[in-house]
Amino acid sequence: MAALLPVLLLTYLSYFHSAVLSFPLDQQSHDTSSCGYKSCHATVPNMLNVHLVPHTHDDVGWLKTVDQYYYGGRNDIQHAGVQYILDSVVEQLLQNPERRFIYVETAFFYRWWKNQTPSMQTTVRQLVDQGRLEFVNGGWCMSDEATTHYSAVIDQMTLGLRFLNDTFGPCARPRVAWHIDPFGHAREHASMFAQMGYDGFFLGRLDYQDRNNRIVTLNQELLWRASESLEPPYADIFTGILPNGYNPPTGFCWDQSCDDAPIMDDPDLEDYNVDDIIERFTSVANDQAMAYKTKHIIMTMGSDFQYENANLWYKNLDKLIRYVNARQANGSRLNVLYSTPSCYLQELHRANLTWALKTDDFFPYADNAHNFWTGYFTSRPALKRYERVSNGRLQMCNQLEVLGGPSSRKGPFGTGDSETLRKAMGVAQHHDAVSGTEKQHVANDYARMLTNGWQHCQVVVSNSLAALSGSSAGRVYCDNLNISACPLTEASKKFSVNVYNSLARPVVWPVRLPVNASAYTVKDASGTPVDCQVSVVPMSKATQQLRKDRGYAVNELVFQAQAPPLGYSTYSVSVLQNGPPPASAKPGPPEAIQNKFVRATFDPATGLLDSLTNLETQQTIKLTQNFYWYNASDGKSSVGNQPSGAYIFRPNSSSPFIISSTAQAESIQTPELQEVRQQFGPWVSQMIRLYSNSKALELEWTVGPVPITDSLGKEVITRLDSSIASSGVFYTDSNGREVLQRKKDFRPTWDLNQTEPIAGNYYPINSRAYIKDDKDQLTVVTDRSQGGSSIHDGSLEIMLHRRLLYDDVRGVGEPLNETSSVFPQGLVVRGRHLLSLTPPPLAADAHRPLAQENVLQPLLSFTEGVPPPGSLLEFSGLQAALPPAVHLLTLTQWDQDSLLVRLEHQFQTKESKEHSVPVTVNLQKLFSTLKVVGVSELNLSANEWLDEMKRLDWRPKMAAKPLRKPPVDPSVWEVILTPMQIRTFILRVAPRR
Amino acid sequence: MAALLPVLLLTYLSYFHSAVLSFPLDQQSHDTSSCGYKSCHATVPNMLNVHLVPHTHDDVGWLKTVDQYYYGGRNDIQHAGVQYILDSVVEQLLQNPERRFIYVETAFFYRWWKNQTPSMQTTVRQLVDQGRLEFVNGGWCMSDEATTHYSAVIDQMTLGLRFLNDTFGPCARPRVAWHIDPFGHAREHASMFAQMGYDGFFLGRLDYQDRNNRIVTLNQELLWRASESLEPPYADIFTGILPNGYNPPTGFCWDQSCDDAPIMDDPDLEDYNVDDIIERFTSVANDQAMAYKTKHIIMTMGSDFQYENANLWYKNLDKLIRYVNARQANGSRLNVLYSTPSCYLQELHRANLTWALKTDDFFPYADNAHNFWTGYFTSRPALKRYERVSNGRLQMCNQLEVLGGPSSRKGPFGTGDSETLRKAMGVAQHHDAVSGTEKQHVANDYARMLTNGWQHCQVVVSNSLAALSGSSAGRVYCDNLNISACPLTEASKKFSVNVYNSLARPVVWPVRLPVNASAYTVKDASGTPVDCQVSVVPMSKATQQLRKDRGYAVNELVFQAQAPPLGYSTYSVSVLQNGPPPASAKPGPPEAIQNKFVRATFDPATGLLDSLTNLETQQTIKLTQNFYWYNASDGKSSVGNQPSGAYIFRPNSSSPFIISSTAQAESIQTPELQEVRQQFGPWVSQMIRLYSNSKALELEWTVGPVPITDSLGKEVITRLDSSIASSGVFYTDSNGREVLQRKKDFRPTWDLNQTEPIAGNYYPINSRAYIKDDKDQLTVVTDRSQGGSSIHDGSLEIMLHRRLLYDDVRGVGEPLNETSSVFPQGLVVRGRHLLSLTPPPLAADAHRPLAQENVLQPLLSFTEGVPPPGSLLEFSGLQAALPPAVHLLTLTQWDQDSLLVRLEHQFQTKESKEHSVPVTVNLQKLFSTLKVVGVSELNLSANEWLDEMKRLDWRPKMAAKPLRKPPVDPSVWEVILTPMQIRTFILRVAPRR
Repeated sequence: MAALLPVLLLTYLSYFHSAVLSFPLDQQSHDTSSCGYKSCHATVPNMLNVHLVPHTHDDVGWLKTVDQYYYGGRNDIQHAGVQYILDSVVEQLLQNPERRFIYVETAFFYRWWKNQTPSMQTTVRQLVDQGRLEFVNGGWCMSDEATTHYSAVIDQMTLGLRFLNDTFGPCARPRVAWHIDPFGHAREHASMFAQMGYDGFFLGRLDYQDRNNRIVTLNQELLWRASESLEPPYADIFTGILPNGYNPPTGFCWDQSCDDAPIMDDPDLEDYNVDDIIERFTSVANDQAMAYKTKHIIMTMGSDFQYENANLWYKNLDKLIRYVNARQANGSRLNVLYSTPSCYLQELHRANLTWALKTDDFFPYADNAHNFWTGYFTSRPALKRYERVSNGRLQMCNQLEVLGGPSSRKGPFGTGDSETLRKAMGVAQHHDAVSGTEKQHVANDYARMLTNGWQHCQVVVSNSLAALSGSSAGRVYCDNLNISACPLTEASKKFSVNVYNSLARPVVWPVRLPVNASAYTVKDASGTPVDCQVSVVPMSKATQQLRKDRGYAVNELVFQAQAPPLGYSTYSVSVLQNGPPPASAKPGPPEAIQNKFVRATFDPATGLLDSLTNLETQQTIKLTQNFYWYNASDGKSSVGNQPSGAYIFRPNSSSPFIISSTAQAESIQTPELQEVRQQFGPWVSQMIRLYSNSKALELEWTVGPVPITDSLGKEVITRLDSSIASSGVFYTDSNGREVLQRKKDFRPTWDLNQTEPIAGNYYPINSRAYIKDDKDQLTVVTDRSQGGSSIHDGSLEIMLHRRLLYDDVRGVGEPLNETSSVFPQGLVVRGRHLLSLTPPPLAADAHRPLAQENVLQPLLSFTEGVPPPGSLLEFSGLQAALPPAVHLLTLTQWDQDSLLVRLEHQFQTKESKEHSVPVTVNLQKLFSTLKVVGVSELNLSANEWLDEMKRLDWRPKMAAKPLRKPPVDPSVWEVILTPMQIRTFILRVAPRR
Repeated sequence: MAALLPVLLLTYLSYFHSAVLSFPLDQQSHDTSSCGYKSCHATVPNMLNVHLVPHTHDDVGWLKTVDQYYYGGRNDIQHAGVQYILDSVVEQLLQNPERRFIYVETAFFYRWWKNQTPSMQTTVRQLVDQGRLEFVNGGWCMSDEATTHYSAVIDQMTLGLRFLNDTFGPCARPRVAWHIDPFGHAREHASMFAQMGYDGFFLGRLDYQDRNNRIVTLNQELLWRASESLEPPYADIFTGILPNGYNPPTGFCWDQSCDDAPIMDDPDLEDYNVDDIIERFTSVANDQAMAYKTKHIIMTMGSDFQYENANLWYKNLDKLIRYVNARQANGSRLNVLYSTPSCYLQELHRANLTWALKTDDFFPYADNAHNFWTGYFTSRPALKRYERVSNGRLQMCNQLEVLGGPSSRKGPFGTGDSETLRKAMGVAQHHDAVSGTEKQHVANDYARMLTNGWQHCQVVVSNSLAALSGSSAGRVYCDNLNISACPLTEASKKFSVNVYNSLARPVVWPVRLPVNASAYTVKDASGTPVDCQVSVVPMSKATQQLRKDRGYAVNELVFQAQAPPLGYSTYSVSVLQNGPPPASAKPGPPEAIQNKFVRATFDPATGLLDSLTNLETQQTIKLTQNFYWYNASDGKSSVGNQPSGAYIFRPNSSSPFIISSTAQAESIQTPELQEVRQQFGPWVSQMIRLYSNSKALELEWTVGPVPITDSLGKEVITRLDSSIASSGVFYTDSNGREVLQRKKDFRPTWDLNQTEPIAGNYYPINSRAYIKDDKDQLTVVTDRSQGGSSIHDGSLEIMLHRRLLYDDVRGVGEPLNETSSVFPQGLVVRGRHLLSLTPPPLAADAHRPLAQENVLQPLLSFTEGVPPPGSLLEFSGLQAALPPAVHLLTLTQWDQDSLLVRLEHQFQTKESKEHSVPVTVNLQKLFSTLKVVGVSELNLSANEWLDEMKRLDWRPKMAAKPLRKPPVDPSVWEVILTPMQIRTFILRVAPRR
């Protein structure tokens, strides 16, 4: 099949600025004879072999921005300059062919590469071909695992790995995943890495109790079975826990940033220390060997932004190796060598042992009894939401770049690209980006990059929609609709709304627009009027403040828009003179709000939610909801001096303070919209909504500015308390995909000593969490990553916002106290939770599509006046909607005449009677405007032909079940997806005429 | 004459461990066609040319020891590792032939060189031959200028420059002297640099008022006429004051130790700053050009221990040059180039201007109104003395290595060398070594190195004396005689004392030995008894404490030993049974003490000195002497917050506190010795002595432990108050050679605004200071470098000891508060001043030889029992004493059959009627045991044939007097020395048979 895809020189696409682009997956000319496992140094059989792995850990933004880190700007904040690291390492590798180096973060490597001369590029290619410079991980960044969405992670990995593939060919294909710094590890990440073809996965951080247990049981190296749905070994990955985080052993850090004594081996000078060094090193190596199974141990010789002056490291490592190994002549059984993670992995594989099987994940991460890194699950909630929205925008941009054809990139609205946003999303996945653990100015920079990327994408989207619709009328995007601001809709008497849906199935979506007239007529693409509702905007103080600078829309227009699969529909809106007055809120809580699917009742005394009913299944639970805050520890009055901070959640008490036991409530109840507006005080309010055809209850919360005049840091939660008998069990998803069961005060793999009753029970929620009993399942779908837990039976709490006054001493050096020129009093955050009550067996049927709709919510764009005659008001890029189980995960231009397409089965095995079954898609019948003329299947990260992907096999300790063969595709065009399977294709396409 | 000295491979000498040694001064094979001035980059005539000079300033010890700095050990104290600097710079020079680097400190370069592979050595040789790596200064260290003795400076320069010459040949011969950090500049240093053949001299520090004046008058570049005795231009040197100390302009420091923004020139990234950089740089360059005369300016792009990662610097400098010069296409008149100090100097020379003439020096140095760097003139008085003693030891070691022949290095006492002490003395000259401005642990390390060097030398001395005397009897050196401790003399009943005299004329020297018997017989080499005196040891509390651990000699034996020129005499000492009782002190001050030359009277009321009389000239002055202390500023209660510290002297008040207005006195008066013992309290005492044939009055002071229980830092002075009408004028020597006139509250070259009435009048005293009027001159010869002044007419004060409680914020980071295990309560220091009263025209006749005797005091060594029969008890290496005006400055083995000899005229012009005249020495008649068979004359630093030395000529502003031709030597063997002239020869020698 490779023959379908010859090496193409691209002419009009420029994914990367400097390199001549090709599709070198099947480059035959490339010499792979001395790279990869073949390039490893020999080890000595009956000795303890110490694999020294020189490496640098280059955060793609943290205390400084990505670009500051690259250049070495703002060295007053932190001395770090990646350009110099790569300069220096290459130079040093050239001086001794024994030396090795691994590089991880392609976002940085790419920047460096494009500034090199051709001769330097040739030199580096040779180093890669000889395995002296090895890429590990190789994604655009080393992603966070707790707060990222699988879709964005796959994209960023693809971006980085493609650059390596295009630039270096197969010798640059990483063999190991390398997540040495993320603060806990998600099972879904392990699953993705397995599907990306990695042979092993190394990590540095895990719960200290877990580590201690594994040291004793020699289980720091294990086999992680990372999916309950995918057949082994497809989601199995060998996983190694590094001995010392990612740092060198104490006393052996020879970077310029360290103060350890160098090897002083000139006997003429004072302080000759070779014997002392050898003895200390031998002792460290022997101690470490006690905690691992084989005659091989690994030492990570590097750390954050190290190797800027690689000579310091290598000069001393050269000496270390020479002097330690010289003792072999006197009977020493210690052998030290330059190595890489894959060379170490190869030796572990050769050991031919069996390994403990792990099926849960590595959350939460605690580095000590009162130091749970569960705060960052929620830290910087606005950035987390913006990242999630940007992911949706990138997918649309990718899709519309394909659907609109070449003029999408260069068209009536100018030159645009998806690359800028793709890279911005790439860096935003970093474990100090979306995680919220960067400094404020760096968070601002991520947001700036995403905004800039979206500006580039807007041109693509506008050009594409112009091509598809046949109208080049000016188009605006109201990026501040989340705070009800849109100058066009607020001022215009007649405008049209384009609703683009990036899902492969039709959606109905409530459009809410700020307007100033009292009544409007809304017509769909066929000219048919649709129901709409104008209501008076609620005026909480926070909202008032927010909107003061942006004009002041008095009303809100709401209607339900429908959009076809992978396409758009256009609605025309015009002011209706002499229409009905806008709906005004009625004071006090309603008894209930309801539509034909859902009923929610309210306590008239408190104004709080009281019960939730699924009218289809006729099930009702008691359900109250309120807001609370934990008093963040200031680190002064408590054991261990640990404050809450960007990383760490540590409440001062296990009992949260209630913000208000009652809510001031008012309601609007119309056929289109049932809305209860709750005010809990000056800085917390909530809208509870039911649209006419919603099956989920929407809770739109607004929190902030969190007051700190009392000098108390606050971690604000929403808590649902229900009649569900959840028995200490709750469920959270992993990176937006598979769901893991959580048990309070429990870990599946060791006997937990719970030291933090709240923080120690927090888990990341990426897209959903639920509690259930035999009868009822209450699922909350979130609009961003948040931390949450179930502390009491029937209860589910989700942390919404954090405002803290102390740094938590994990390096960021700032309290998480977000203010800005727009929010001088503190950040106000708004978000949505969607509540779904179902019987457990039907829950996934509801929450799977609901979550995808939330991630990929439609894109609205606006045009003044009426659409020009003859323009196409509705379009679908698909011939038909895909089956409900199938999600179109990726659709993006790959090169001139081919697309990268990922199809995903979005249900887990067994979770849906109807959908947890194999489903077939015919690739030739996908697109309405494109003919598929060729297909090749790839690994998940699109850097290897699937049929060429060979992974090392690892045996679990337990006897393996006999493998079930995956179903065989009926034809080359008809592909079967099994539950949770993602299949990645390059499709060669041509326009349908 | 060069033919006399073929290139010799040395077989038994090993001056340097690694390199094959040769004498390459006249290597013909060396290609010098592209080094030196010829290697300079072209400049652009009508533009402002900015010479960027990449450099590192590598202190040969300061906060860390030399070896710690070399290796990068103790980086917790300061990040600095010279090995990496040289690694990195060489690597970076190779990457772009335009780049330049200068290196200064050969002590470090030598260490690095000997660890390089032959291939790296070849590479470096090429860089040197192409002028890409240029050595400047090139001595073993960058010496201090205030506290060093010219003899040791010449030695350390010779050591470093010889290594460069031997290793690289003429391309490595530095063209400029480079003293960018020393804290003020001595005229004698400038004179030496001129005589060493340097074309120019650059410095970084001078008085801020001086600098401001020079900026206004465009006199930051000048011609320094550095001797009143040597005919111009022999001691003329062009001197440039660097624009910014030795640092880069603000904002342009691109070292890893700096935080300035790098040049961020990728327009795709944030923070593109090329335009901003160019504008800032242009502004800095134009501002700087305003303060200098030519179209060339220099920028020192480097600083302390910079360039450890040279890539950071060079990468940004490359860009700076590229981007700034690119603007020339748009009309910019700014041209930036990589350069070196010599290339800059060449352009100044080509400018063909006249330059202001300077004849004084650059002391004292103040960096602001209350920040006079005059404390270090005295800081660490014990180290200063130990360095001075070690210099004498090294000269003896060198001499005896020659006189004793090959068996000196390998003989009955084992293998010894002079190299170890030579190198230790080389680093001890560093401007943070003998200056006393290093951390305590570093001071300890210098002392350790000197001690270690002396151990190696003791073997040479013992072997040599064994060869010369014919006796291999065990020989001990009582290194603690200064505190009256010598186990052999304290215990022995019969021993011999070898008195080695390194001067070229006979000396008489008082030998003082701790003994426990009451009476001794002393016989000279001919067996003739000599007068001697046993007296009871005075028991000051401090002395008691000191001697407790070393045994306890109750008596002291004193006799006057005579020793022949460049030779020894042996005295036999034996206990005399039933001899007279030891002399005991008589309580109370005597009326006077006197011998045939001098009479000193005492005030019976105070016990203090009262008058001094020269009995030969029949002149008497009133003279009192006492001890005082200045209260060191703590930086808290005074203007400018400057405390006194290791560098800075800042008394809190101009009136010192008197320690005691009276002294408890007692005296011993015998024909051999007249001694008054004064006690001024628990921590200050003094012995005033007159030996039978002394022409000078000896004041041996003991100060310490300076009490600090009152939390006041103290700076202890001795003050002589006389009847001399000195009129605000006093005199101090420069590095032990020529004397400069000082005037209170006055500077010769600008209109001084005196802001520190005491500290601002302090000057370094290296070997002598005096005051005078028409009739009387009172000269004080010191035994080490000290600071001093004349604050009142007739008064001369010298600072003896400093104990301070605050750091003075100039980097050392420690208060100068010396304690040790031996002195837990604080350092006790003992020293000697020799007072000479003469008519002014006769003063030099006294103080010149007195000072040399003091610097090169005889070496005593001891042998138990009587000398073996037949052994030679007296020896002189000279055929005859040299004329009184001639000092044998250097006598050391150069290679297998040649010697390095320096002859010095030790009188200034006009200072002595008798001696300030030319004097002739016949080289063939010098040595008693060596035949001189060849002679070649060299420059002062012995790295260039004198007849090949060509220096750039510079014109002073004032019309030059017509040059007087130096007298012509009568023959090749007969050399004439004019006042203050030093002539340097390589003598080829053979043993006389």
